Amino acid sequence: MQTRRCLVKRRKFRIVFQPSGRRGEVEEDKTLLDASRELGVDIESVCGGKQRCGKCKVRIEEGRFERLGIRSSPSHASDWQASETEFIDPQSKAEGFRLACAAKIRGDLLAFVPEESRAGQQVIRKAAGEITVAHDPAVRLYPVKLVPPSLDHPLADLERLTEKLNETHGLTGLTADYLVLMDLPQILREAEWDVTVAVWNDLEIIRIYPGHVEECWGLAVDIGTTTVAAYLCSLKTGMVHATESIMNPQVVYGEDIMSRISYAMTHRDTGLEELSGRIVTGLNDMITKAAATCRINSDDIVDMTVVGNTAMHHFLLRIDPRYVGTAPFAPALHRSVDIRARELGIAINKSSYVHVLPIEAGFVGADNVGVLICQEPYHQEENQLIIDIGTNGELVLGNKEKLISASCATGPALEGAEISFGMRAAPGAIERIKIDPKTFDVNYKVIGRETWKRDPESGDMKAKGICGSGIIDLLGELYRSGIVQKNGSFNKNLKTPRLRSGSDGTHEFVIAWKKETSIGKDIVVTQRDIRQIQLAKAAIYAGAKMMMRRLGIAHLDRVVIAGAFGTYVDKEEALIIGMLPDITLDKVVSVGNAAGDGARMALLNRGKRKEADQIARQVEYMELTIEKEFQDEFVAALTLPHGKDPFPHLAGMVPDEILNQ
Amino acid sequence: MQTRRCLVKRRKFRIVFQPSGRRGEVEEDKTLLDASRELGVDIESVCGGKQRCGKCKVRIEEGRFERLGIRSSPSHASDWQASETEFIDPQSKAEGFRLACAAKIRGDLLAFVPEESRAGQQVIRKAAGEITVAHDPAVRLYPVKLVPPSLDHPLADLERLTEKLNETHGLTGLTADYLVLMDLPQILREAEWDVTVAVWNDLEIIRIYPGHVEECWGLAVDIGTTTVAAYLCSLKTGMVHATESIMNPQVVYGEDIMSRISYAMTHRDTGLEELSGRIVTGLNDMITKAAATCRINSDDIVDMTVVGNTAMHHFLLRIDPRYVGTAPFAPALHRSVDIRARELGIAINKSSYVHVLPIEAGFVGADNVGVLICQEPYHQEENQLIIDIGTNGELVLGNKEKLISASCATGPALEGAEISFGMRAAPGAIERIKIDPKTFDVNYKVIGRETWKRDPESGDMKAKGICGSGIIDLLGELYRSGIVQKNGSFNKNLKTPRLRSGSDGTHEFVIAWKKETSIGKDIVVTQRDIRQIQLAKAAIYAGAKMMMRRLGIAHLDRVVIAGAFGTYVDKEEALIIGMLPDITLDKVVSVGNAAGDGARMALLNRGKRKEADQIARQVEYMELTIEKEFQDEFVAALTLPHGKDPFPHLAGMVPDEILNQ
Repeated sequence: MQTRRCLVKRRKFRIVFQPSGRRGEVEEDKTLLDASRELGVDIESVCGGKQRCGKCKVRIEEGRFERLGIRSSPSHASDWQASETEFIDPQSKAEGFRLACAAKIRGDLLAFVPEESRAGQQVIRKAAGEITVAHDPAVRLYPVKLVPPSLDHPLADLERLTEKLNETHGLTGLTADYLVLMDLPQILREAEWDVTVAVWNDLEIIRIYPGHVEECWGLAVDIGTTTVAAYLCSLKTGMVHATESIMNPQVVYGEDIMSRISYAMTHRDTGLEELSGRIVTGLNDMITKAAATCRINSDDIVDMTVVGNTAMHHFLLRIDPRYVGTAPFAPALHRSVDIRARELGIAINKSSYVHVLPIEAGFVGADNVGVLICQEPYHQEENQLIIDIGTNGELVLGNKEKLISASCATGPALEGAEISFGMRAAPGAIERIKIDPKTFDVNYKVIGRETWKRDPESGDMKAKGICGSGIIDLLGELYRSGIVQKNGSFNKNLKTPRLRSGSDGTHEFVIAWKKETSIGKDIVVTQRDIRQIQLAKAAIYAGAKMMMRRLGIAHLDRVVIAGAFGTYVDKEEALIIGMLPDITLDKVVSVGNAAGDGARMALLNRGKRKEADQIARQVEYMELTIEKEFQDEFVAALTLPHGKDPFPHLAGMVPDEILNQ
Repeated sequence: MQTRRCLVKRRKFRIVFQPSGRRGEVEEDKTLLDASRELGVDIESVCGGKQRCGKCKVRIEEGRFERLGIRSSPSHASDWQASETEFIDPQSKAEGFRLACAAKIRGDLLAFVPEESRAGQQVIRKAAGEITVAHDPAVRLYPVKLVPPSLDHPLADLERLTEKLNETHGLTGLTADYLVLMDLPQILREAEWDVTVAVWNDLEIIRIYPGHVEECWGLAVDIGTTTVAAYLCSLKTGMVHATESIMNPQVVYGEDIMSRISYAMTHRDTGLEELSGRIVTGLNDMITKAAATCRINSDDIVDMTVVGNTAMHHFLLRIDPRYVGTAPFAPALHRSVDIRARELGIAINKSSYVHVLPIEAGFVGADNVGVLICQEPYHQEENQLIIDIGTNGELVLGNKEKLISASCATGPALEGAEISFGMRAAPGAIERIKIDPKTFDVNYKVIGRETWKRDPESGDMKAKGICGSGIIDLLGELYRSGIVQKNGSFNKNLKTPRLRSGSDGTHEFVIAWKKETSIGKDIVVTQRDIRQIQLAKAAIYAGAKMMMRRLGIAHLDRVVIAGAFGTYVDKEEALIIGMLPDITLDKVVSVGNAAGDGARMALLNRGKRKEADQIARQVEYMELTIEKEFQDEFVAALTLPHGKDPFPHLAGMVPDEILNQ
């Protein structure tokens, strides 16, 4: 009799993904999504493999593929799941379509990944902004020439060095990192006692260069849920010499934070390590590239600052993020930390520290602190609202008297997720939309092409889906042209072939016809999609209102939109759909990737690090979900535009036909 | 044509060592000594494989060994070296004897290791002494009960913990090690917010225990060139709960420091790593054993202090020790350092530090600092001379007004090396000798037996060689009984079969006859051996004299002999041979392993660590070799006993026949 303890060695089968042609052997019972990760095939997976988003459709081919040495058949995958019916219609099912996260391997398989399921290379939109900050980096270089030891004066190397640094540069009480100590006798003698010493925070020797060196380098990093950006700066001049950005390599585990936290929780042994390792590998790739751009070695980078939301912060530090994802959402720590790069596996100068900026609250992370030290609302008289829309919406309101922060659950709709044809800001994404209020014809622009569709020279647009900024435009334009009503419902009386009955019985509006797309079908927005966008914009509006009430502020002096999303969103459309609180267009500013700019400031100025620690503890976090009036405020804000008298604030900005509607 | 760049893959041959039977495949051209290390066979190698000590003789067998599947022949080893002729006589050569460090592998070999070449397990003589020190350990435990976070009060875990530690125990400004941080959310919740926190130096959290814990543990370590000793102490009571000691696992690379430094230098890629790794592995073995003795886990050890000479200090820290071995002998650093155990690969609590005590000078290391903080000469009125005889002799002289230190090159003779039948203090070593001045008969005691040879119940002594304390006795007794004259030469007029002409034409004295030994030959002391001992004792005496002159001290109040050697040496014999400066026997004290006791004091009291750093920089190092009068003083001290009127100070202590000689 077989005992239950015996180890079953799993069989392996050959798996091929087309059109990439990636192939390999994968263990029985793994899902095709798992296989795609193992074989380096990027398949979209917004929900992180939980059969909830339907983005990971693949087609299993039937046949004998001689050259590949396999016979593939839909029957080589595990049984059809009820959850798949929601996303795959009967005809597609008949063609062999499956959700890659549902179909488990039971034999050799050849799977075709249709373009809409392919995770494209995101267009990175996190350029470094202009910043002004006093030059006071944490790492500085000090040249010294030492007298070699002699029998008369055999003082030890370290004391010889620190005494000289004291004598010539006034540095006292210096220590040295252990790894510097290990190499010290060798390097001093090879350099014939003429060296340049890199000192961190006037406290510790973190590198010794032979001879006279004048320039050293630092890296400021912004780890977003979707995008990671890195700025390589000269610590001598403060200039950015290279900007690198990549899609967050954790994206294959799910686009939203909760999917990734959930992956880490359900894979107890390796999940956290995998997700953490992905970020570190990604950072090291960027470090290699940025260093190559500047023709330096990666160990010439002697300092590094990092911002990121609380989950990314915890993932980077390999701290279990599960409690950040569950009420009461307490993070592991608030304060900034300096951790040796080598302890994190980050391949800069081995003795250097990574300075991770502080966290305000579970949902208001170090990225928001970066925005704050960049914008400095705590130095200003005027009341401003800072909105940072990433995968979550973070809000800060106040002035030098008081600042409060809140997080609002916008959901991922504003990033293109959970929208029928939503996608990331990758080539082929519709990022800009105009609808003719008379003909209801749609003009749009996709990422990767300079021209609009209407432009005679635009040629074939090959749209693939719609991204965040396109979604704001879309709702604004649908509303402005009367296709969508105040309550967000389609105006079914309109006569246009673009407005039609969808597969689920509710209406949908065609943005791009099949022939204009690269996915072989019409790109549409459904009634359900519009509801998602309404929910997202109402969350921001209601959150801001609650905060204004808490501080007793009736009118805002300024609205600052931070984040890449802010840079590309059309502020006017945002006002039209009622995403932003009542304010005139000229008081709304976009400040780009202020979180990354804040990381750069902390890299170049030690005072900014102190400021960050102070402000992170001073900003008062307001938990919106426990506020009594929040629900009412939220429901009221669902309307387009919200409130009883929605338009006065739009006077002069919105076309007449809307105002007269 | 073959290019010189092509990689030659070396062949491997089967090597067997007898009588242990250890075997394996070893690369062509490695020496038999290298092979013995690879296969875990301990062969004596005092010079570290430089063909200078002749201790590593092995016999290569001729024949076909069917069971082992090899044919062995002396011709399977590389050619005879000139250096071997010095140590191996023609008959032994004919029998197949070779120096293991000279014979390189050129085919299958079976090598027999004769008992005299086997490195025996050393008898460890480093018991913990009685110490009195105020209870003030660097690591302390603090129990705390936290209020769990809530939506109203979602303060982060770390700040929640540090605020409570401040509130209940007055600790301010606490940080936490990164690895503590990583586990923090998990451990607080699993412990239901009721924990005990281990804090290092009131500065940093290094461990969190679930629940209420009262006891934690520390390890004090003394890394000697020959012996490593470790004392596991309760940090609550200060009591020693386990003592472990091992032979320094580096011994296979050479018994003296210079051999090991030279190995590290000549094997640039791996030498330092190997030697360092040996110490760390040895320490980890001791940690495992000591923890098992106390029924704790090794990670319950939360603090560790280390003393050792400068070379051992550098090896432990993986710092290139070559410059410590070359003039002007400057060490890499003087000050004490706190290095994370994990960075050193030491398997105690992962966030704990190893506190390595400071170094006085290149030849006066942290072990001497340990002796000083244990003896505290800097608090005393009386002038004392502290002698620590290990592989080097370290001297400290002075009182609370001033202290000076020096190192004297005793050579390894006092440890049994470079003496014909010298050996370490291992079983079979003669450790005590008495010579009858009338019959010249020799009575002795070997390690491993309680009785003297003359004892009727002693049975077969099976002497193998003579160790340090036996060597002092030997010279004292030879002199006392008139066998050796004042100048150290044998009195050739004596009629005794024990005094005879040796193989090199000079005289030798038989200590043990062949039938009493386990090595199949007489154990003798040669004229050359006596010269070695004279050199060693003169170095100590002359060093002490120079130091007394420097401080203007005519008479010593006290002589303290530290180190295991001091514990076992016969003080009277040491005075007879003139090793110690003029003083009466009652003023000479042995204090055992004071270096290890000092390490324990530093473990149990933080003040002692500060004291160590202060005294290490205050003691003035005196380089004897550059003093003009040293040579004269040294030559004068070679005499037995030294000086013009050698005996008055011995009145009442030395048998009449000597005084009347």
